[in-house]
Amino acid sequence: MLNRFSRRTFLAALLTLGLFGFTSIQARAAVPDPLPSWNDGHTKQSIVDFVTAVTKEGSPDYVKPAERIATIDNDGTLWVEQPIYTQFAFAIDRVKATAGKHPEWATQEPFKSILVGNMSAVAAMGEKGMVEIVEATHSGMSTTDFDKEVKEWLATAKHPRFKVPYTDLVYQPMIELLDYLRANGFKTFIVSGGGVEFMRNFADKTYGIPPEQVIGSAGVTQYQMWDASPVLIKMPKVLFVDDGPGKPAGINHFIGRRPIFAFGNSDGDKEMLEWTAAGDGLRYMGLVHHTDAVREYAYDRNSTVGKLDKALDEANAKGWTVVDMKGDWKTIFPPAKANP
Amino acid sequence: MLNRFSRRTFLAALLTLGLFGFTSIQARAAVPDPLPSWNDGHTKQSIVDFVTAVTKEGSPDYVKPAERIATIDNDGTLWVEQPIYTQFAFAIDRVKATAGKHPEWATQEPFKSILVGNMSAVAAMGEKGMVEIVEATHSGMSTTDFDKEVKEWLATAKHPRFKVPYTDLVYQPMIELLDYLRANGFKTFIVSGGGVEFMRNFADKTYGIPPEQVIGSAGVTQYQMWDASPVLIKMPKVLFVDDGPGKPAGINHFIGRRPIFAFGNSDGDKEMLEWTAAGDGLRYMGLVHHTDAVREYAYDRNSTVGKLDKALDEANAKGWTVVDMKGDWKTIFPPAKANP
Repeated sequence: MLNRFSRRTFLAALLTLGLFGFTSIQARAAVPDPLPSWNDGHTKQSIVDFVTAVTKEGSPDYVKPAERIATIDNDGTLWVEQPIYTQFAFAIDRVKATAGKHPEWATQEPFKSILVGNMSAVAAMGEKGMVEIVEATHSGMSTTDFDKEVKEWLATAKHPRFKVPYTDLVYQPMIELLDYLRANGFKTFIVSGGGVEFMRNFADKTYGIPPEQVIGSAGVTQYQMWDASPVLIKMPKVLFVDDGPGKPAGINHFIGRRPIFAFGNSDGDKEMLEWTAAGDGLRYMGLVHHTDAVREYAYDRNSTVGKLDKALDEANAKGWTVVDMKGDWKTIFPPAKANP
Repeated sequence: MLNRFSRRTFLAALLTLGLFGFTSIQARAAVPDPLPSWNDGHTKQSIVDFVTAVTKEGSPDYVKPAERIATIDNDGTLWVEQPIYTQFAFAIDRVKATAGKHPEWATQEPFKSILVGNMSAVAAMGEKGMVEIVEATHSGMSTTDFDKEVKEWLATAKHPRFKVPYTDLVYQPMIELLDYLRANGFKTFIVSGGGVEFMRNFADKTYGIPPEQVIGSAGVTQYQMWDASPVLIKMPKVLFVDDGPGKPAGINHFIGRRPIFAFGNSDGDKEMLEWTAAGDGLRYMGLVHHTDAVREYAYDRNSTVGKLDKALDEANAKGWTVVDMKGDWKTIFPPAKANP
């Protein structure tokens, strides 16, 4: 009773001072802002309106908890993807670290160019070079040994511009969005073109997304017995590419339900958003538009990494939400980390 | 207070009558048997002991909830797989139902033999014939249309011996086991050689296992636009075979964690149990041994369907639990269904 009385006295004092209306104070006290790093405006409001509509029992848009599936891209949607995909930075560092065991790389592309530091030559080789680099560095070891390599690298490697570990370069507004969705009964999944085994080494700690809710590209693994102990060996063979039209296929393969909420940032997410939009009932489709060269990066239609062109046109045509990073996000990175 | 007094009076009366010891009554009142369809004995006790050990905080065997992963085979472990796998019965019925659209099948094996009812000829074609039948009946349609076909078939088809729908032929003791595991914080997954999209049409309703926790063999799907609406088309191409050594690979691909509890019934589950056993800490590996020709079926080393030979030897050598269906299971099927 003392607490309630004190609070009423305090509120009455505020009213007397004319600082706020009583209703507004009550609402703020009852429901703290779940998305404090999002500036008020259309984008933030559209998220809150959607979540409110699908979670309110009796609402025509109500969706039962088991069907509240949210699928979110990783690179460029949950963390920085510039100047190169983080997993590619890992692969390049692995080429350098293991070159001693591969004397043939001194004369063999794309490894030769990496080892002499000619990254523009590597970039010029395009996807073919990238696949060779990833296959060479992501196969020939057990899944357990690979996990150890990834964890060690994540603990030590730093981003070239921000000079902090890559896992510090996650977007605070998106972390809040994931928390907000889960607090409202959503099951949050990552659906990324990145390697599923790479991401599982940080997704739980960094995003609160457990391994079984991480969907990504994958290689073939082979079951073998080593000293009477079973191991899974990563083979240099692609099993599944979870990008573009592969995203709906991956969602179907792993989840077996259609999401009602999906977020991406590039043309690689276009089909995931289309697939989400095509379901019955209320749906939410969002794209992060990188518009902030000062605090992060600004890029879209002409970018090599994270190109956003056709998906942006489709979003505009269909009324999907496009997040203006510069205007919609109060902060970019978690506090006390890489905010410049 | 009245209730408590009444209960004490009742218990005191029982004690006076000398019917039961007080402690035993208390224990029964507090914890109803979670596995009533299992006969008391070593098998049932081993399950209860394991679950108690990994869930008791402070126990050296304690496992936190997020890591309580249980993987359970489907055919022959959760439901009847004799005389042929249910999914194969579905495929054969689909061949018959769609033969009108395939005049070439009248002269083309294995379809010709199915259409004239010569099932021993089909069986003689072995795996090659089976793959052709499955590919022909599981591709060329959208995932949505396939789901509709499966649901319609499950609602109408009956098992040749028990004359009830296939989804009635689930094992009541295993349903109780799944409930018991989930009540103790486990996340239960199906890990089956069967088709993932086939199983997802009944796993939620029948076993309480949602689509995203069903792992199985899968075909390639292709994203297409039909009348400006996206569809996933099932292609006649295998993506992944989730059987034998494919089970640990599937577990790694989908879940990304090693199970602490696994149950199967055939040699196709051997590697899943080995993979489970090879983790650190307390583990539970179980096999259902079909020993009850009267109430269900009796088969093991020489069976074409659900052959249990090498896995049985390994279970015996390593002390994995082997369920004796005849002795360990009080009932086989859910009440008021197919119990003969």
